[in-house]
Amino acid sequence: MIESVAIVGLGLMGGSLARALAARGVRVFGYDRDLEALTAALGEGVVAAPIGNGFAEVAQANVVVFAVPVQIAPEILARLAPHAERVRLITDVGSTKRTIVQAAHELGLADRFVGAHPFTGDHRSGWNASRLDLFSGARVFLCPAEATTATALETALEFWSTVGAVTEVMTADAHDERIAWTSHLPQITATALALALGEQRLGAQQLGPGGRGMTRLAASDAEMWTNIALDNRIAILRAIEALQEKLAEARAAIDATDEAAVRAFFENGARWQTPQPISKD
Amino acid sequence: MIESVAIVGLGLMGGSLARALAARGVRVFGYDRDLEALTAALGEGVVAAPIGNGFAEVAQANVVVFAVPVQIAPEILARLAPHAERVRLITDVGSTKRTIVQAAHELGLADRFVGAHPFTGDHRSGWNASRLDLFSGARVFLCPAEATTATALETALEFWSTVGAVTEVMTADAHDERIAWTSHLPQITATALALALGEQRLGAQQLGPGGRGMTRLAASDAEMWTNIALDNRIAILRAIEALQEKLAEARAAIDATDEAAVRAFFENGARWQTPQPISKD
Repeated sequence: MIESVAIVGLGLMGGSLARALAARGVRVFGYDRDLEALTAALGEGVVAAPIGNGFAEVAQANVVVFAVPVQIAPEILARLAPHAERVRLITDVGSTKRTIVQAAHELGLADRFVGAHPFTGDHRSGWNASRLDLFSGARVFLCPAEATTATALETALEFWSTVGAVTEVMTADAHDERIAWTSHLPQITATALALALGEQRLGAQQLGPGGRGMTRLAASDAEMWTNIALDNRIAILRAIEALQEKLAEARAAIDATDEAAVRAFFENGARWQTPQPISKD
Repeated sequence: MIESVAIVGLGLMGGSLARALAARGVRVFGYDRDLEALTAALGEGVVAAPIGNGFAEVAQANVVVFAVPVQIAPEILARLAPHAERVRLITDVGSTKRTIVQAAHELGLADRFVGAHPFTGDHRSGWNASRLDLFSGARVFLCPAEATTATALETALEFWSTVGAVTEVMTADAHDERIAWTSHLPQITATALALALGEQRLGAQQLGPGGRGMTRLAASDAEMWTNIALDNRIAILRAIEALQEKLAEARAAIDATDEAAVRAFFENGARWQTPQPISKD
């Protein structure tokens, strides 16, 4: 039974987790640098008690969740570690998993650490964007460290099921490689497209529904994505290169007025939507 | 008063127009190569009478609308021209406007021709995707020829207002240049992204909501887009090149672990969503 959870960071992810847990009767301890967010969470009765800057309160929780930017998570993990001796599970919500799993290992926390990446959310961020059902039916990738105990992994599965998520376990390496394609490349593409349009002084209001769907992600949190892009650099570079190749193919076909090649480009793209065999990584 | 309209092509666009007009008491004559679509439109009472292969029935209509692929529109326009002497307006729904406006000019129909591009629709196509409210509140670009009379343009404004559209008048050249950026580039980007993912054996089911939004357009009608890409070739090549440059910038910044440049990339992209000054073309 998970009776109490400490959540560090009450943004879109942490705030939504707090809402989902509190609604299920779990006692939530909350921390946020932003006092307004923390005050709001306490005021709404979502967070039962605040966590101070010393992080001593985490000692009272069964589970600790990091919901802070991926770049500062290791540092906070270090500050929190001394108080987490009786905690059964330490998990997070970062979009990349290699760095944080490695940090947990180096801090000697790997036995109770399971990295998590909820594959959900949207381009908004912060406590005000958080909502009760964010994780309901959402896919959550779980990445145990090599030293993670079976008990900790079971607690992670229980924890994420509690808030309605569908879990999928994989290594941190496999996760980061996969997500470079399925999440990071789409984000970078949306941003690049928005910038290309902006240079033509064309904004969202000049787009149709299709174009708006293709640029919505450009509004995503820039700081978070800077961190992600640097953290998952190598895999992302490969993914961008693959997209550049496809654009170069399209451009060459159109430039040459090669109707068969242009048709193949669009036909193969349309065919992609039908389910493909899934790689086994 | 527009009392009768001949619609050539009963797909997503033509079918939706037929539905919207019939619902407002306009008598709709309909043509489609696909007898199933035509039979369905007649059976549902949306089309009042069929148009035969000789196109003689268009003589009874106030307005003729082409809703056929942009590449075959000029040919059908030629076959139909002899029957269109008393027609007050000839319009279309193609995604590019230069070619069709030029064709109308060459056939001596330019005085009554106003090209139209409803900036709506989705990745589905065909009669079965057509719906009553497709044009309700939709933006429709109107591109008169040089020789278009004021009366014909007024009829076009009346016609598109009848089905609830918001009209914007511009030259065919300005339209095709604009739309290369706001519609054609997003489509090509979605297709290229889908192909890059497909090569990794990653399908739509591996994507989150963001990635799905970025690839939805890949399912669009390949034949239509092949025609568009070739018809608006020069402007599209420029637009692809601009996107390639933005991706190259992102890649260089990430490759160099240049945090400031990576941050600027995402920050400028996020800033794009706020309304930009509109170019006056």
